[in-house]
Amino acid sequence: MRSETRTKYPLPLKIRGVGRYLPRRLIPSSEIERRCQLPEGWCRQRQGVAERRWVDDETVSFIGAEAARDAIRDAGMTPSDVDLILSASNSFDRAIPEQSAQYQHELGLGQSGVRCLGVNSGCLSFIVALQLSAALLRTGRCRCVLIVSSIITSADVDYTNVNVCTMLGDGAAAVVVTLPAAGEAAGIHAMHMETYSRACDISGMHGDLHKKTMFTKEIERQDFLFDFDPQAMQSTGMLYSQQFMARLWPASATKAIRFVIPNQTSRFNLDMMKFTFPAEKIVGVIDRFGNCGAVGYPLALYKLVREEKQLNAGDLVLMTGMGGGFSLSGVVFSY
Amino acid sequence: MRSETRTKYPLPLKIRGVGRYLPRRLIPSSEIERRCQLPEGWCRQRQGVAERRWVDDETVSFIGAEAARDAIRDAGMTPSDVDLILSASNSFDRAIPEQSAQYQHELGLGQSGVRCLGVNSGCLSFIVALQLSAALLRTGRCRCVLIVSSIITSADVDYTNVNVCTMLGDGAAAVVVTLPAAGEAAGIHAMHMETYSRACDISGMHGDLHKKTMFTKEIERQDFLFDFDPQAMQSTGMLYSQQFMARLWPASATKAIRFVIPNQTSRFNLDMMKFTFPAEKIVGVIDRFGNCGAVGYPLALYKLVREEKQLNAGDLVLMTGMGGGFSLSGVVFSY
Repeated sequence: MRSETRTKYPLPLKIRGVGRYLPRRLIPSSEIERRCQLPEGWCRQRQGVAERRWVDDETVSFIGAEAARDAIRDAGMTPSDVDLILSASNSFDRAIPEQSAQYQHELGLGQSGVRCLGVNSGCLSFIVALQLSAALLRTGRCRCVLIVSSIITSADVDYTNVNVCTMLGDGAAAVVVTLPAAGEAAGIHAMHMETYSRACDISGMHGDLHKKTMFTKEIERQDFLFDFDPQAMQSTGMLYSQQFMARLWPASATKAIRFVIPNQTSRFNLDMMKFTFPAEKIVGVIDRFGNCGAVGYPLALYKLVREEKQLNAGDLVLMTGMGGGFSLSGVVFSY
Repeated sequence: MRSETRTKYPLPLKIRGVGRYLPRRLIPSSEIERRCQLPEGWCRQRQGVAERRWVDDETVSFIGAEAARDAIRDAGMTPSDVDLILSASNSFDRAIPEQSAQYQHELGLGQSGVRCLGVNSGCLSFIVALQLSAALLRTGRCRCVLIVSSIITSADVDYTNVNVCTMLGDGAAAVVVTLPAAGEAAGIHAMHMETYSRACDISGMHGDLHKKTMFTKEIERQDFLFDFDPQAMQSTGMLYSQQFMARLWPASATKAIRFVIPNQTSRFNLDMMKFTFPAEKIVGVIDRFGNCGAVGYPLALYKLVREEKQLNAGDLVLMTGMGGGFSLSGVVFSY
């Protein structure tokens, strides 16, 4: 771990627009409980998930681009105002070209020249994309960044793994970020990230794609299925999160935080936050959307900004969580 | 396209160390020519490739970490000096956790907390990682970045596609970058990127992983094979590269460039550069390593710095190329 003492905060960054797309099929938890022969209410109680969306014939590109259009409209802009497209997720339709270029294509910007690249830190990709955007805006590399997080987890549901199949959801959300205008106090006040790969096996895909090549060597379905160990994830989270939070934001300044957006990966994460923050400050969407990985953060932001209209300019937001890696990352920003 | 008028150049950045790992199997072009019933010398003449390395039982993580160790040693550092690990490639062993965390694990840094994330813009990933590193160093987000590019293309060779199977190679290379020390004039003087997804189909994987799920729906081997259209790539490159270069670096300053590292994807790219630069300034490694995607750039840098010992502190280097997306990206830096 390095302290990041030389960062001059705040790093100016204004979230101009937020958008989302909800896949067509609404899957109530009762449907999965029946299929997995679980007691009624199990998903809600154990995972905190009442329902989730799964795609019908929608693709990662389609749902991502729909969310992007919504965010761009919300910002009062048009797609051609964007000068950088960041894909912030570990889900994609085609492995090459990068998913960000596929969003560009879907948005009708195929001849625009707008730069496209992907940022991947698993479930933390959205937070990392915000951090990178701030550095790129600050150094004049871009003026208007479209961050798109889109995920499809339902492509091959493993109903024998109840920890996973009861939890995962599909969805997409996007934000448009720029430098603040004169008089706007928006910006990032703190950001931090730590990775502990000693715990790299507690969540992930087990298959080694290059050792077990897809068509030439032996391969099992298991190699391509996402799995995770909820107990190990919780205990690893407990082990590192306290020191992580202390490095991200001083305990003495906790009261200044107006809203907390934790990772929407399990009920446990939301409950954990209640030891530090009053319940009404904690924003949760896992009940309606399940675990959508990196997409959970902008989905929760959407809820605050557009559904509940609770977030005002200047409000201090803590967005933080953990994910495969094992990584922890967080930002504190004035909206 | 946006002009990037507000960037204040140079952005300080010093490449402290360069490393590489060459996979164990050396495959002479004659072997592939025999297998594909091509005339002797075809690969050399058409692709510019005399030989390439293919992995034996080595993984993306292993070869990447070996290259990283070599770069860290070359920098006179130890792995614990690194405070950010960037994976810069579209190749990975496991889809989750992100490849960067797998490098951290291989490097024995599993308990270090050092941040890990992946940057993906296909074959341009290394250039993009340099650009992002400069922004992160400039804003104090990190002090010592390890950029690792590693690729395995030989996992499932399609010998029916002679354009591809004669060209691709495996390999890994890495660099360590920091801020310059007092008195060091190293830094990035210009950088630029453009993406034109109207040409997104000229190179890539054709399979839509979420429409054709791996085990539940119909799938063909073809869906997972890399393919590209060399004619379309060349004509698209011709269409955009002149205006791209003019935006990256003024023609009037071309003479100041000491070395040019173009993309090592085909003989064509190296030949194209000879219209603008004298042949002795152009660094090529495609003859020995084939097309290793993003890895070609640091492999060529390695050749300049460690094999030929031709690059001196302060020398101006242009590193630029094109890749799937369709994207073009480039940097001009003082070494």
